[in-house]
Amino acid sequence: MADDGQKRGEEGEQVVNPWEVTAKDGGKIDYDKLIEKFGCQLLDRFLVDRVERLTGRPAHVFLRRGVFFAHRDFNEVLDVYERGEKFYLYTGRGPSSEALHLGHLVPFMFTKYLQDAFKVPLVIQLTDDEKCMWKNLSVEESKRLARENAKDIIACGFDITRTFIFSDFNFVGGAFYENMVKVAKCVTFNKVVGIFGFTLEDHIGKISFPPVQAVPSFPSSFPHLFPGKDQLRCLIPCAIDQDPYFRMTRDVAPRIGYQKPALIESSFFPALQGETGKMSASDPNSAIYVTDSSKDIKNKVNRYAFSGGQDSIENHRKYGANLEVDIPVKYLSFFLEDDAELEQIKKEYGAGRMLTGEVKKRLIEVLSELVERHRKARAAVTDEMVDAFMAVRPLPNMFS
Amino acid sequence: MADDGQKRGEEGEQVVNPWEVTAKDGGKIDYDKLIEKFGCQLLDRFLVDRVERLTGRPAHVFLRRGVFFAHRDFNEVLDVYERGEKFYLYTGRGPSSEALHLGHLVPFMFTKYLQDAFKVPLVIQLTDDEKCMWKNLSVEESKRLARENAKDIIACGFDITRTFIFSDFNFVGGAFYENMVKVAKCVTFNKVVGIFGFTLEDHIGKISFPPVQAVPSFPSSFPHLFPGKDQLRCLIPCAIDQDPYFRMTRDVAPRIGYQKPALIESSFFPALQGETGKMSASDPNSAIYVTDSSKDIKNKVNRYAFSGGQDSIENHRKYGANLEVDIPVKYLSFFLEDDAELEQIKKEYGAGRMLTGEVKKRLIEVLSELVERHRKARAAVTDEMVDAFMAVRPLPNMFS
Repeated sequence: MADDGQKRGEEGEQVVNPWEVTAKDGGKIDYDKLIEKFGCQLLDRFLVDRVERLTGRPAHVFLRRGVFFAHRDFNEVLDVYERGEKFYLYTGRGPSSEALHLGHLVPFMFTKYLQDAFKVPLVIQLTDDEKCMWKNLSVEESKRLARENAKDIIACGFDITRTFIFSDFNFVGGAFYENMVKVAKCVTFNKVVGIFGFTLEDHIGKISFPPVQAVPSFPSSFPHLFPGKDQLRCLIPCAIDQDPYFRMTRDVAPRIGYQKPALIESSFFPALQGETGKMSASDPNSAIYVTDSSKDIKNKVNRYAFSGGQDSIENHRKYGANLEVDIPVKYLSFFLEDDAELEQIKKEYGAGRMLTGEVKKRLIEVLSELVERHRKARAAVTDEMVDAFMAVRPLPNMFS
Repeated sequence: MADDGQKRGEEGEQVVNPWEVTAKDGGKIDYDKLIEKFGCQLLDRFLVDRVERLTGRPAHVFLRRGVFFAHRDFNEVLDVYERGEKFYLYTGRGPSSEALHLGHLVPFMFTKYLQDAFKVPLVIQLTDDEKCMWKNLSVEESKRLARENAKDIIACGFDITRTFIFSDFNFVGGAFYENMVKVAKCVTFNKVVGIFGFTLEDHIGKISFPPVQAVPSFPSSFPHLFPGKDQLRCLIPCAIDQDPYFRMTRDVAPRIGYQKPALIESSFFPALQGETGKMSASDPNSAIYVTDSSKDIKNKVNRYAFSGGQDSIENHRKYGANLEVDIPVKYLSFFLEDDAELEQIKKEYGAGRMLTGEVKKRLIEVLSELVERHRKARAAVTDEMVDAFMAVRPLPNMFS
């Protein structure tokens, strides 16, 4: 999946597509407008409650705090589940960089929760072909980055008995490729221009890529996993910028006799500098990387994290912090598990009784612990484990 | 490879591309003009002599009678061969129909000769993906036709120890797919519009197909055959309507560090009704099929083969036949091996001493024998043989 790349938006307009996320006039992303424009649905409290009831466990932080805020047919997938049938999960990553940042971890942390809560199989696509084409990386470098990123993904704790990770360069072919052709037959050049903004000067690799990201939505693309289960539903957790791919996929699905995939879509993890878009891969100070040391984290948070606190302590005590734009609070709302503590911080900080420095200090603790835990888990991932996750094999505990 | 399909040419203009072959104003294809337009070279007597000298055997009928009349870098491939190095052959077929006609056999008969004469490996691509996309066949039907056509191809007598036949649906992936992506990165939509005449309304499967036909030109697409031989030269025998694919391929090759493939290109096998283009797949009476009985052949030749003979016996005796337009003589020049007999027929018929009926009678004999020989060979091809030819395996006698 793409996370950055060429620019297409016009000045001043909100642009969200797999290659660009830009808020209107340098402001914040208007997610309500995005839902309306894309035609997806708001993920409301009713659905969150339903997840808790069906799985018998509390909703994930990202669900109860609205990080995953939109969906398509998620309710239908829950209907299926409630009837005692299963579904499978599909998510992915475009391996464009050596190290992931925290925003990259968000969908994987959430997907791991979904896998644990619903006990369902998961396919993870590494679009090394896409990154080779969009980022002008060599085939070899793209494949190497795919394996490196697989280690970070595995470190999130996925269950090897329910998880199949694949690189497009390695896996495309066979049934997967057949589905690509079926999808491609249903999509004109004009259509991909409309959905993705391709131009006549784009190379044909870009134009032909969307089916590659579409077909993991169809169980028949994985004959080693789902033989005879062509109508199994698929749920895709992803950031909302990937919605264009799956709008296309959902449009095509019934025309080739398949189920539309359902989606559960997140907002973007904001840059340290403020919530105006996604993090920029070209500015290392805009993001916390899983390779950052505690010292790096402390330095970045203290130096770059946009604060909603007031200019002077006097004003802060008087007016309190603006929580709407405060990045440390945003980050804590992603990663501080304890609801009561988060509420307490918001209350005290918003009232001016807590200072920016104190909030940042708590954030540095939370992030350092998260990154340290990830680093340890990542260090334990061997090449053999990568091979095992990527082996084309049946999954022993797929639906149990 | 494509042999018919949508129409793009304007009335009155000569159009030759992989989907359409139409002569100007219903006349004959102007092959000299085609060579000039495409920028390939004329295959002259010097090159034919050189083939005879290098291989120590007489040139194939199709070579000495100018059926294969154009080339690109064929002389360079002969240079390579003369230095004691080898090359490999690549040809293909788009499996769009159950039964082949004689025109379909021409490239395979010639390729078999090249394989025997130069003792080189051969890869045969069955573009079942292309036919699925262009002909709107289902994936399953395209794959079935690919296997059926493989039987006809095997029946041409290829050496299993030197021949790898593959269906795109089965084989695309791995190194082959990597090369597809490399090629696709070098070709814009505008470029494929220019080369193939695609439009904005064409589906993206068509737009993304050309790399699939391009990459068998590169030995690294076949790691089970040519490991470490990335610079091995490739020679492609094909009809000249496939030239656009390989113009594109030759343009891209140096940009991704590969050798340009060489080509040896044939004119079109004419329809029974006359030499104005290729045979129409939609008119069974325009072609002799390998499934036709001797009675069918007799009937078709007598009824439909366009004759250059005169309206009356008197005029025929007086003016002689017009050999330029006479289809029975054209067909005999493809399939009558005996040069002396062919010359004798042309002389007698052209002078009006031999009648159309007599020439047709001889043609019926030649074709019936050819088709009968093919039918017997085809009947002996088992599914196991198809599997054996299509197995992804090293070729034991590749260069020996």
